[in-house]
Amino acid sequence: MTSTAAVPPPRATYRRLSVEERRAQLLLAALGLFAHRAPDEVSLDEVAVAAGVSRPLVYRYFPGGRQQLYEAALGSAADELTLCFTEPPEGPPTERVARVLDRYLRFVDEHDTGFSALLRGGSVVETSRTTTIVDGVRRAAADEILRHLGRMGGEQPTGPRLRMMVRSWIAAVEAASLIWLDDGKRPAASELRGWLVDHLIALLAATAATDPETAAVVNDLLALETSDGPAGRLAERVIPIVAEAAHLLPAAAASD
Amino acid sequence: MTSTAAVPPPRATYRRLSVEERRAQLLLAALGLFAHRAPDEVSLDEVAVAAGVSRPLVYRYFPGGRQQLYEAALGSAADELTLCFTEPPEGPPTERVARVLDRYLRFVDEHDTGFSALLRGGSVVETSRTTTIVDGVRRAAADEILRHLGRMGGEQPTGPRLRMMVRSWIAAVEAASLIWLDDGKRPAASELRGWLVDHLIALLAATAATDPETAAVVNDLLALETSDGPAGRLAERVIPIVAEAAHLLPAAAASD
Repeated sequence: MTSTAAVPPPRATYRRLSVEERRAQLLLAALGLFAHRAPDEVSLDEVAVAAGVSRPLVYRYFPGGRQQLYEAALGSAADELTLCFTEPPEGPPTERVARVLDRYLRFVDEHDTGFSALLRGGSVVETSRTTTIVDGVRRAAADEILRHLGRMGGEQPTGPRLRMMVRSWIAAVEAASLIWLDDGKRPAASELRGWLVDHLIALLAATAATDPETAAVVNDLLALETSDGPAGRLAERVIPIVAEAAHLLPAAAASD
Repeated sequence: MTSTAAVPPPRATYRRLSVEERRAQLLLAALGLFAHRAPDEVSLDEVAVAAGVSRPLVYRYFPGGRQQLYEAALGSAADELTLCFTEPPEGPPTERVARVLDRYLRFVDEHDTGFSALLRGGSVVETSRTTTIVDGVRRAAADEILRHLGRMGGEQPTGPRLRMMVRSWIAAVEAASLIWLDDGKRPAASELRGWLVDHLIALLAATAATDPETAAVVNDLLALETSDGPAGRLAERVIPIVAEAAHLLPAAAASD
């Protein structure tokens, strides 16, 4: 989505729109403003100007003012972000995760200031409702990752160890994207995505070392990976590092 | 720190305390309450009762009421938590990190509800000031971890890749501790600590695979590790997993 703030506001021609169309138009204008500025800095007047309507019209649709408009815009952005996670269960799983991360990072790029302000906390518009919306997106992300790990929709619920690993990786991705915004969107999004996929593979391998469920998942996943995909490239480069750790191994294991 | 709320409040004898002593006493009472309940649920009256003083006396010390008291208590808790991170630079680095995590998880255990409410966001007491305090703790944690990785106090600043990895691991630790609280503090804190140390080792190995600075750090760290420490135990268990990935390697690398 491009910023509505960047284009000149349409003339206030008051073309007849249906209630739903008008609401969508106001939300789009609000999203454009909330995406690139801290919510505390966006006034209802600006939303009205950006949408090319009068302030009273904005209030008619959003009697709760900025707070209500912010929550509606956030809900709409959350739906959009959740859609980004959807990825068909085909091909090497690490490449699926890479595509999801590409779409996620594009979303972060396109909503930079608003994304950062929301997740940093301390904003006047933050309430338990906005927190619930954000938590819903996190849960959807975890479910989608677990689906690609083959652990959703089955008969057994995911065990605590794998679930915690996936959820804490998602928190790490969130933190990394905030740092990325602070660092002026450097490195390139594709490079950051590569790091984050590598993190997930590394965490899966470390967790598989002591958790039988994750070990089974990793075993199934590896059969779907290729030598020129993210898992193959990481495996190749990580071998010299593991070799450096050889002095740590008991003699029996080292000679295996 | 034990909860002041759990012990009966002292009698209101109004023993003569110095200004500093009285302030510390009020803060301790507030911390005890804020540790185990959501900040929105703690009233100034309860702080007065817990400290065994009158409500006007609380207001004399904290004219800003609950908000000011909360921020002061948070600042005091933040100082305490930051102290937990301090660890002498001796012995295997993974064992140092394990000790830091043990103290951190004890702090989380002792401030469970308050910790969770603060980091979940959406509380009425959350402001840009409270966010700044929390961010300060995160920065201190990152600096301490980088110090044990040998990357603080040197002449060269830490590169973006290693810094982002450490900061995103800290975010993952935070998320894991919130999940741990939600799950009724299961598994045992020592087990969770083991998972989190494993995560850090795995992330370091994966990052070393493509980042020369991290590769140099890992090389130096490995010389300090032992076979019966966290790094040795993980290396031993992760080898069968890496072996499963052998089919992903190009023939040349696999025969090395």
